[in-house]
Amino acid sequence: MLIGHQTWRFDKKPVIIQTGTVGGPFEAKGKIPNAFDLLHDDIWLKQDSFEKAQQMMMEEACQIAIKKSDISIGQVKFFISGDLINQITPTTFAAKTMDLPYFGLFSACATSTESLALAAAIINGDGADYILSGTSSHNAAAERQFRYPTEYGGQKPPTAQWTVTGAGCALVAKEGNGPVVTAATIGKVVDMGLTDPFNMGGAMAPAAVDTIETHLKERDVNASFYDLIITGDLGHIGRKVSLDLLRERGIDISDEQYVDCGLTIYREDQPILAGASGPACSAIGMYGHFLRLMEQGEVNRMLVVATGSLHSPMSMQQKDTIPCIAHAVAIESGSDPS
Amino acid sequence: MLIGHQTWRFDKKPVIIQTGTVGGPFEAKGKIPNAFDLLHDDIWLKQDSFEKAQQMMMEEACQIAIKKSDISIGQVKFFISGDLINQITPTTFAAKTMDLPYFGLFSACATSTESLALAAAIINGDGADYILSGTSSHNAAAERQFRYPTEYGGQKPPTAQWTVTGAGCALVAKEGNGPVVTAATIGKVVDMGLTDPFNMGGAMAPAAVDTIETHLKERDVNASFYDLIITGDLGHIGRKVSLDLLRERGIDISDEQYVDCGLTIYREDQPILAGASGPACSAIGMYGHFLRLMEQGEVNRMLVVATGSLHSPMSMQQKDTIPCIAHAVAIESGSDPS
Repeated sequence: MLIGHQTWRFDKKPVIIQTGTVGGPFEAKGKIPNAFDLLHDDIWLKQDSFEKAQQMMMEEACQIAIKKSDISIGQVKFFISGDLINQITPTTFAAKTMDLPYFGLFSACATSTESLALAAAIINGDGADYILSGTSSHNAAAERQFRYPTEYGGQKPPTAQWTVTGAGCALVAKEGNGPVVTAATIGKVVDMGLTDPFNMGGAMAPAAVDTIETHLKERDVNASFYDLIITGDLGHIGRKVSLDLLRERGIDISDEQYVDCGLTIYREDQPILAGASGPACSAIGMYGHFLRLMEQGEVNRMLVVATGSLHSPMSMQQKDTIPCIAHAVAIESGSDPS
Repeated sequence: MLIGHQTWRFDKKPVIIQTGTVGGPFEAKGKIPNAFDLLHDDIWLKQDSFEKAQQMMMEEACQIAIKKSDISIGQVKFFISGDLINQITPTTFAAKTMDLPYFGLFSACATSTESLALAAAIINGDGADYILSGTSSHNAAAERQFRYPTEYGGQKPPTAQWTVTGAGCALVAKEGNGPVVTAATIGKVVDMGLTDPFNMGGAMAPAAVDTIETHLKERDVNASFYDLIITGDLGHIGRKVSLDLLRERGIDISDEQYVDCGLTIYREDQPILAGASGPACSAIGMYGHFLRLMEQGEVNRMLVVATGSLHSPMSMQQKDTIPCIAHAVAIESGSDPS
């Protein structure tokens, strides 16, 4: 399974047999409403906290994936998930509802690919036949925790991003029909000294570049091996920074081939500033949009690189820099996996 | 690897080739000072926040394990770790220092066995030859986050526990000399409706019982198969509750055989109330104390069951109950693994 230092090749080719995606009202007005299996018209989901609304979306995404498949929840062996909220409480309460053996993760916005890489590794090692892997975020829960009460109406700089309200999950299986997970590269923490929590795209870009470069080298392929290289939520600024860095390092990557989930979900006329973010951003982009392009035959091979910024203004000092991480997962169409 | 629904048997028998343990001044005065490779006489470790002191202990524990082994840090493929602090910031900054591909976990005080189970599974599936797996906690950082500023001197009820200041890690390898990891059971979230954050031992006891019962059933052994069944940090109250529950369910387990890391670390005359807690509690108990008993030939087989309470008073409402989880890992002496 291990090739190089930090890349896995999954010889048994775990399959994404189903996915589930849920979003909120702001996402419903975005560019890809069809990427969602379920859209809510109320960000509260009739709950009494945003975190409970987030929990419910995570549960719904899993239930949808199960319902669309031909297996029952009782056949699922593990739930591998996390989110952005302190102590990943929404995920934990969702795990309680689903009553599945549970691995709690924390990689902030890189959780979608951390959980998918682990699910694929466990299945590849005969540790399970079915695993639910996913993540969620909620705009208002993230704003409350990381920034200011939204009622203050504070101005944000143009480098800031909009946290996606939603959840996305994959039902990964040992056998079945669907796109296959062929490889993964686990990232290192990259910290270039940035301290501005309103420019996460810029802070995360070098982590994405590091993981992409390592992945291509350890898998011994060129960027052109992939139809798409999809970053999680770098937004306009992070996308530009990372593209420049990749080209500086000699990686030949085209503008069309390099896409970002954070620029895929919303319309340009929505007030999202530099783009979309949050763990759900890459999960919904990957499972709701790009995998459907693969189903439709428009894409054969893609590398999804979710990036997370792991700074905590609560427990470390404000002057601390923002350590970031990116995990990459390669997904190929089941019809002709390499 | 999978046996039953949620238990893994590691046929390739990953080895714990080294461990590293670090503690603070209160731990130095405890019952097992020899369990620590390094003891600090200052809870600040000369840092300007408790969280940074915690980060430093995690780094030291890893460096010690590497130094005691015959490999270099560059040979380690992954660092699998987490802690109790919001967004596991101490762990993330330690991962940055160590410059290793990093899986961030959140399972609160169950992190030690979650990380060891994953490390063993990855090695068993040929995903790495060397992995550092560990966790840390800091009394003052945990008090600040979960309770009140310690300067207030608030009274605590006799059910409360004392969070351990320290870190513990294992260097897990594909081959080598040392105790072997033979099996693991991944827990479900168990929530019996308790709401008192000052009685974590009582809240976590049913999770420990559920995982122990499942493990014995799925591995198809009696409790007597293990010389010791070691819970993480249930303290006096949780230990009694869980022992009663285990016996009610027909599991024949002796008082001597059933030990708790939380009752192992401190002297009874230290003001620890119901016992010790924190992710470092089970890591230090397991790696610093019980594995040394195994080295000395006093123990041949042990099941370590770290339990975590996953409640967050910050992001969910106070009236919410406390969901808990327990993950079990079986460790057997390298000389005669079953």
